[in-house]
Formats: sequence, C-alpha cells, structure tokens
Amino acid sequence: MGKEAKIASAVVRRLPKYLRILEELEAEGQQRTSSAELSERIGFTASQIRQDLNNFGCFGQQGYGYAISELRDEINRILGLKEKYKLIVVGCGRLGEAIANYTKAFEPQFDIVAMFDNAPNKIGSVVCGLPVLDERWIREYISKNNVDIAVLTIPAEVAQDVAYRCKDGGIKGLWNFAVTDIKDMGNVKVENMHLSDSLRALTYYITNEK
Amino acid sequence: MGKEAKIASAVVRRLPKYLRILEELEAEGQQRTSSAELSERIGFTASQIRQDLNNFGCFGQQGYGYAISELRDEINRILGLKEKYKLIVVGCGRLGEAIANYTKAFEPQFDIVAMFDNAPNKIGSVVCGLPVLDERWIREYISKNNVDIAVLTIPAEVAQDVAYRCKDGGIKGLWNFAVTDIKDMGNVKVENMHLSDSLRALTYYITNEK
Repeated sequence: MGKEAKIASAVVRRLPKYLRILEELEAEGQQRTSSAELSERIGFTASQIRQDLNNFGCFGQQGYGYAISELRDEINRILGLKEKYKLIVVGCGRLGEAIANYTKAFEPQFDIVAMFDNAPNKIGSVVCGLPVLDERWIREYISKNNVDIAVLTIPAEVAQDVAYRCKDGGIKGLWNFAVTDIKDMGNVKVENMHLSDSLRALTYYITNEK
Repeated sequence: MGKEAKIASAVVRRLPKYLRILEELEAEGQQRTSSAELSERIGFTASQIRQDLNNFGCFGQQGYGYAISELRDEINRILGLKEKYKLIVVGCGRLGEAIANYTKAFEPQFDIVAMFDNAPNKIGSVVCGLPVLDERWIREYISKNNVDIAVLTIPAEVAQDVAYRCKDGGIKGLWNFAVTDIKDMGNVKVENMHLSDSLRALTYYITNEK
C-alpha cells in the first residue's frame, strides 16, 4: 500500500462510481465491458473513462475491453477496500443510527465497534446492537482499540472539538456529517459530507432544465 | 428562469460549495473576497474559480475581487434557491426521519409537507411533526398538492416503482437515498445519493496518502 502514484482527487471521486457500475454489470452476469458501455451507464465520456483507468495501469484491450472482475478487483485495491476498517459512530441521534444501519447492511468491510454519545439517557443503552459509550472516553477508546474511522453525526458546535479528540486518540479518518467543515486535521483524512449540496444541484436542474 | 445558458454539470456541482464558503465569509463579517481567498478555503485553483464564476457573468474586479452578498445572491438565483419547494419524504425509517429533521433545521426554502410509509403501524402516526400518509396515495397527493420534490428513503427493491408513481403525479425532482440508481425518469430530475462513495474516497486517502 501507499505505493501508487498520487491520483488526482477528481479521479478518486469517480472510482467509487466505476465500482458500483462494475458490480451492477457483474450482478447481471456480464464478464467484459467497454469504455463505451461504461460511458453509457455512468455518464462520463468514453475517453474520460479510458484516461481514468489508464491512471493506474488498467488498459482495456482494443476490441476486447475490460475484464470486469479484474477491473473491480483493481479498483477495490486502489480504494483500500481490500482492508478491513474499524469504525465508531459519534452521536446516536436518528442520523447516527441511520448511518450505522446503512454501513452494517451495505459495507461489510467496515466494522462498527461502538457508538458514542454525551446524553446520560443514551449512555449505557444499546443502539444498532452496539453499546453506547460515554463520549468523554473517545480518545482513550480509539487509542486502545485501534479504531480507523470515526463517523461524526453530532451538532456543528461540538464537531471540531470531538474531531481533535479523535485525532489525539490516533484516528486515521473522519466521515463527517456535522453541518460544518472539519479543518486542520493534519494527517487525519476528512470527508465532509454536505447532504444539501446535492439537494441544491437538484433545484438547479429543476429550475433551469425543463 | 430557464434563461441561463446550460452550465456544465461539474460547475453545477461546485456552486453549492461556493455558496457555503460565501455564507461562511459573510458570517465572519467580510464584505469582499477574491478568487485567491476562495481558492484557499475551498481547495479549487483560483483560475478554476474565476472561470466558474465567469460562466454566469460574475466577473470579479481586478484588485477588488467579488462583492460577497452579490455573488451569494447570484449563485442562489442560479441554483433556483430563490424559489420555495414543497417536499415529501417517502419512507419513515431512521434515515427518512433524519433527512426530514435535517431539511427542516437547515434548509428553510424547502417545506416538508408530508411523510409517507407503507407500514400499517406507521400510517396515521406523526413523525417530525408531520402526518404519515399511506404510500399508496402518493401519486394523488403529489398531483393535488403540487409537490416539487420527493425524498426517497426506502428499500432499493421498491424505489423504482415509487419513483414512477411520483412521476405520474407530476413530481419535478427526486432526491434518492435508496441504495440503487433511479433510472429513466425523462423530465423528472434525479439526484442519486451514494453515501458510501465518500466513505470509499476516505479509505483511498487513508490507504494511499499517509
């Protein structure tokens, strides 16, 4: 790992989409695909797709295209999805529960090991089959259990502080749903999810492309 | 409305990000900004930003930059956020509730008018202060109440069928959280949300950029 040449962030963003389409094609029983077919399913141009896949040495064969399982495997490897990851969810509100359930149901390589909250009535209860622990001990828990990723489903006001404590515990990545950007995390990778960005793109299309 | 030249989809995707940063700067009491400052906050290059904003006639003045409130206002207009939208949420599980709460709390121009479910024990109850209606009547409800957008937080297996019924009712857009792409919607605009795409980008960065 860590041996790849650095791939442009726009390409990294497109890889999970390729993966989804490849899984779809595989589920439909197909063994090979072409940049033209991928283009039709995914909406990027065929030349864009060829260029993206060339980035990490996946050259389709002229007239034969790509072997789906090999390509899927390679993208999985590049995205780091051959590894297993330990996750904790911080914030046991509806969104925290929803994300925990979603991850358990659809993302087998991510293992949610604990939930955290700061509300006395939640601490000690069981949510999504997991114990709810006291948020105060988050740093210690991460460090002791080698947690890889913390999912933050907490109010914006406390997000940065919780993020710093996760960092102190040795977290590797933050999947942040708090309605604020987490900043200054140094080596800790951060994905700030902005749910409403896509709602706002939707209103653009509704308003402008009738 | 509908008078804009068609803007490339990649630019449309970036506009909500500009909007967030502009709102942030405004909240910090700033009145003007530059492509260099925007670049630092948002991570795109300054020339990319100038090019994006030129797309819809927002020319910064050399040495003066952009007036924040004007630019915010213009992006709001382009994204269609000067309008109000009526939303329904289909699927009253945790994710449906979480998205309804999120939208009510942070997106004042979106008015959630009803929740829908097909479970007898949910129909007739009140969720997020809204009546839960029988999913069977979704088409009629949309048509009678001029609903603009349906948020789908339902299982993948039923999503396409519900989408078609929303379309028959005259829906304009679908904000889809079901774990499947909604297809073939013709004039109906669809945003397929893939929560795990960002989780998978996160594992890329954790694995490859230490």
